[in-house]
Amino acid sequence: MPRYLSTFLLFLSFLLNVTVAEGLSLKGLSIEYDRGTVKILDQQKLPAEEEWITVETPEQMFGIIRALKVRGAPLIGIAAIFSLAKMAEEDASADAIKDAADLLRESRPTAVNLAHYLDRILENMKGQENVHDIILTTVEEIFNEDVALCDALSEYGAALIQPGENILTYCNTGSLACAGSGTALGVIKKAHSQGKNIHVYVCETRPLLQGGRLTAWELEKEGVPYTLICDNMAASLMAKGKVNRVLLGADRIAINGDTANKIGTYSVAVLAHFHNVPFHVVAPYTTIDPLCASGDMIKIEERAPHEVRGAAGSFGNVCWSPKDAPVYNPAFDVAPAELVTSYILDKGNLSASELSTAIIGDAQ
Amino acid sequence: MPRYLSTFLLFLSFLLNVTVAEGLSLKGLSIEYDRGTVKILDQQKLPAEEEWITVETPEQMFGIIRALKVRGAPLIGIAAIFSLAKMAEEDASADAIKDAADLLRESRPTAVNLAHYLDRILENMKGQENVHDIILTTVEEIFNEDVALCDALSEYGAALIQPGENILTYCNTGSLACAGSGTALGVIKKAHSQGKNIHVYVCETRPLLQGGRLTAWELEKEGVPYTLICDNMAASLMAKGKVNRVLLGADRIAINGDTANKIGTYSVAVLAHFHNVPFHVVAPYTTIDPLCASGDMIKIEERAPHEVRGAAGSFGNVCWSPKDAPVYNPAFDVAPAELVTSYILDKGNLSASELSTAIIGDAQ
Repeated sequence: MPRYLSTFLLFLSFLLNVTVAEGLSLKGLSIEYDRGTVKILDQQKLPAEEEWITVETPEQMFGIIRALKVRGAPLIGIAAIFSLAKMAEEDASADAIKDAADLLRESRPTAVNLAHYLDRILENMKGQENVHDIILTTVEEIFNEDVALCDALSEYGAALIQPGENILTYCNTGSLACAGSGTALGVIKKAHSQGKNIHVYVCETRPLLQGGRLTAWELEKEGVPYTLICDNMAASLMAKGKVNRVLLGADRIAINGDTANKIGTYSVAVLAHFHNVPFHVVAPYTTIDPLCASGDMIKIEERAPHEVRGAAGSFGNVCWSPKDAPVYNPAFDVAPAELVTSYILDKGNLSASELSTAIIGDAQ
Repeated sequence: MPRYLSTFLLFLSFLLNVTVAEGLSLKGLSIEYDRGTVKILDQQKLPAEEEWITVETPEQMFGIIRALKVRGAPLIGIAAIFSLAKMAEEDASADAIKDAADLLRESRPTAVNLAHYLDRILENMKGQENVHDIILTTVEEIFNEDVALCDALSEYGAALIQPGENILTYCNTGSLACAGSGTALGVIKKAHSQGKNIHVYVCETRPLLQGGRLTAWELEKEGVPYTLICDNMAASLMAKGKVNRVLLGADRIAINGDTANKIGTYSVAVLAHFHNVPFHVVAPYTTIDPLCASGDMIKIEERAPHEVRGAAGSFGNVCWSPKDAPVYNPAFDVAPAELVTSYILDKGNLSASELSTAIIGDAQ
């Protein structure tokens, strides 16, 4: 939504004051805000259990984001601002809310939506006496925008899919990553709902297995036919001509099109390029970072070594390597723009050179 | 060793009859034959436990090979012929030994050494009255050849390594795969022992984690510096210029150079090609299949789906995906000759077109 329109709607909602009077209530598949109560579906426990966590404080939310109980760039941002909304409902001071925003910003430095959403709230708070109303209204606006963005990009993406396609996807990019239907998985679910008879290859996505645990669970729930593979099997499928298209998400897109996403994304990009398989990054415009000129500028977190030495979750906790094995464990890698066929955004199916047009007027 | 030489040695050992008189005794890091007693180090229990299994029958050996308790193309072949040697020591009939050979041949159809070794024994048995001596002598000869082959290829390979190189390897190709020091890992251990100050990136090798479990264990035991990575991190390291060379093994090399090896090998081959990283297949000449013209002819086994749905071993048994998730689980893939920089064999460092010269006079 263009900035002038969102500002106008914000002003309008102020005049009417409807939402705030009734109490704010917002619900996604894996996140919920109900008049000061914040609930998060613990993604670490899927697919075996569906356990919701009630989140009381920003410190608790920080820990939950760090522990990947909530994940996916847009959903992390939504979760963080739900914590600020709760503080506002409890009449926290503007200073306390700013401090909480600073803390939450550090929970996942690569997830750009998080910073965007927090900045947007802090910007709207500036010079305001009563931050309660402005925070709740902004949170509602961001949540509804996320749902609308998923719907828009899913339509653009599904239009590219031919009947009977085999689509390879990576990590989890569905309703466990967004307030709405998702990015790459939003496109897949939309194409499936259009009766396009698609089939999905799901990469398990080591070391944290978001594909094997979450995407497999979500596709099963939605009735989309899929096959689970280890990440190292994608090339073999491509060589056999069994992959028509790659669709995956993004944690941050630089203005030149370089895309930071879950570790292993770059590997899939190179393999797709070698086999002439179209490779699409699917994301809302909010994932584009206008302050990031290229992939070189993207800070990559390194995560704990035990993740690579084994696997852990509600399914168990195993270590198969020597117990002190030295490990390399970057959370992300960067697919350079030249390996990306197109960017499926809420504004359309764009080339790298068109990316800057997607954000003009919308983001700082 | 050329065929005329091995035949001559065979004849000589017959005249002397020294080995058989004393009782045959052969020992590797993970396999042992001692006057009719066959012992196998259970590789499924590494790195946590070192447990040896005493193998009584060819049927038991079949199960052990199928269950990957012994693995690696050369070692599988050695394990199988140890079972025949034991039968010979127990005065089994030639027919019973032939039946056992037929059974063992089916335990891992892609492992070409297995068929080679069994054929060689059956060939030597032809027209013989007393198969006891001929079997024991042939088994000893094959075992010692494997050790000598590893030594020879390790020398050729280590000569290519520059001081300070970062070498990426895949699966396990060391003394847990061979009677001798190994193939790719034999080269690595040799270069390390020459003081070349190398460092090894070990791909974990999903789904069965031979890299994470076995190669990491073996390098730690040998004191070679290494870093364990998930398979999907190799590309990212190559993009950063952190990989100077790829060394990996082979389960079967077609005469045109196409190489079947652990699933994920093809992926590494494409990534190395894209990043101009030298990619070497390391194997004894026995891995070349002169009856296999190209990779298309190589039969690829599909393994059980539970392997991809989780991980299992002495470390535990976990399933992280939906419990009935549909799965694709090929045991191998094929790296085409055009992606292989060279083949490091016991005969030297060869190009694909030179492969046929490596087997002339040595194999049927």
